[in-house]
Amino acid sequence: MSRDALFRQAAEALGFAPDGEIKAGGNYVPVLRDGSTLYLSGQVPRIGNAVVITGRAGIQVALEQAQRAAKICTLRALALLQRELGSLNDVRQILRLTVYVQCSPDFTQHSEVADAASGLLQQILGPAGVHTRTSVGVYQLPKNATVELDLIASAR
Amino acid sequence: MSRDALFRQAAEALGFAPDGEIKAGGNYVPVLRDGSTLYLSGQVPRIGNAVVITGRAGIQVALEQAQRAAKICTLRALALLQRELGSLNDVRQILRLTVYVQCSPDFTQHSEVADAASGLLQQILGPAGVHTRTSVGVYQLPKNATVELDLIASAR
Amino acid sequence: MSRDALFRQAAEALGFAPDGEIKAGGNYVPVLRDGSTLYLSGQVPRIGNAVVITGRAGIQVALEQAQRAAKICTLRALALLQRELGSLNDVRQILRLTVYVQCSPDFTQHSEVADAASGLLQQILGPAGVHTRTSVGVYQLPKNATVELDLIASAR
Repeated sequence: MSRDALFRQAAEALGFAPDGEIKAGGNYVPVLRDGSTLYLSGQVPRIGNAVVITGRAGIQVALEQAQRAAKICTLRALALLQRELGSLNDVRQILRLTVYVQCSPDFTQHSEVADAASGLLQQILGPAGVHTRTSVGVYQLPKNATVELDLIASAR
Repeated sequence: MSRDALFRQAAEALGFAPDGEIKAGGNYVPVLRDGSTLYLSGQVPRIGNAVVITGRAGIQVALEQAQRAAKICTLRALALLQRELGSLNDVRQILRLTVYVQCSPDFTQHSEVADAASGLLQQILGPAGVHTRTSVGVYQLPKNATVELDLIASAR
Repeated sequence: MSRDALFRQAAEALGFAPDGEIKAGGNYVPVLRDGSTLYLSGQVPRIGNAVVITGRAGIQVALEQAQRAAKICTLRALALLQRELGSLNDVRQILRLTVYVQCSPDFTQHSEVADAASGLLQQILGPAGVHTRTSVGVYQLPKNATVELDLIASAR
């Protein structure tokens, strides 16, 4: 199956409309290309106009829900790459993923949350989805989102 | 008006001396160029030797003051770009802006704080100031600053 | 002394085995090269299988211990660069260092913690170790680590 078909399948499984609008949540753009390098703005788990998973991982939000939030953020990032490039086939490599998790003071499973994003990138993009990563636990996120992630990628 | 003149005007309106010294707050450099890519160190709202806006957005610091902090950080970043390149005319594009807001546990207007930085970049640089962005809420910042931001830009 | 010899010396002084395995803590890779740019994943102060410095700077962890954590993270980053390039001689420049410190609500010495990382990079790499930097205080980190850092570097 092509990357674009895998993306569509994963998006539908998670209730995310792959052709929906991906608006930036402020005075900036969601994606910018510099030569072959693509910068993506921070993505929260928004479907349509609603941030669908909010609250603090470890108290209000279970690990599985935080992982689902990470997957929705990832789908948004993939949708942006697909629009920018025409097809996910033109992603050469995901270079860098940063995952911010809004968490309780003693929640330490940030890597497990981020693994959901990392796994989805590799499931859809194959070896091109392999990346470096940093995950941290933050105090709050825009719109009370449980997860926010951004990435740098390269295009063919 | 030229970008440099717009910068001077904005700096004066905010009480920031555009020709003042911009020191790094530790054992590092404020800006580094790699080919056409410019990396800027994290900027806090420092004017001269004092960090002028400190404390936690949402409790100790009102939204408008946090936005003012974001603008001062942005002026510092622009001053660094101007020094590195000779003129802001040689900024090709602001590629990536990351905004860290020291906040209360339930403050969720990080995007509104960051919009003040984003707006100023575009006001002074025009289309070259359009960028991708991530904003997050953090627990503390160096010197108790309310806002810290860093950026990656490209030069002509 | 060569950079590789300086690295070995610093690693031994801190109890870090420079030839030990550096595993990624999840579903990602520790380092990725894109042209001459090297992206490194977030490093926590892990020696072997154990994260050796955990807890919150300012309450549970003294400044000196947090600085030691930053140095161990830096050694891991240098070990990854050495493996990727064959020798630290092939590091052209450390471009960008981001340091996350898990801290108490009123801890503001993030720059002092990060200076330990910055100093070690310059001690081992000389002028190639000079870099731009951002340091922030976060609410938690993977495995309760006190410090996490990542970096972008360029290769000769």
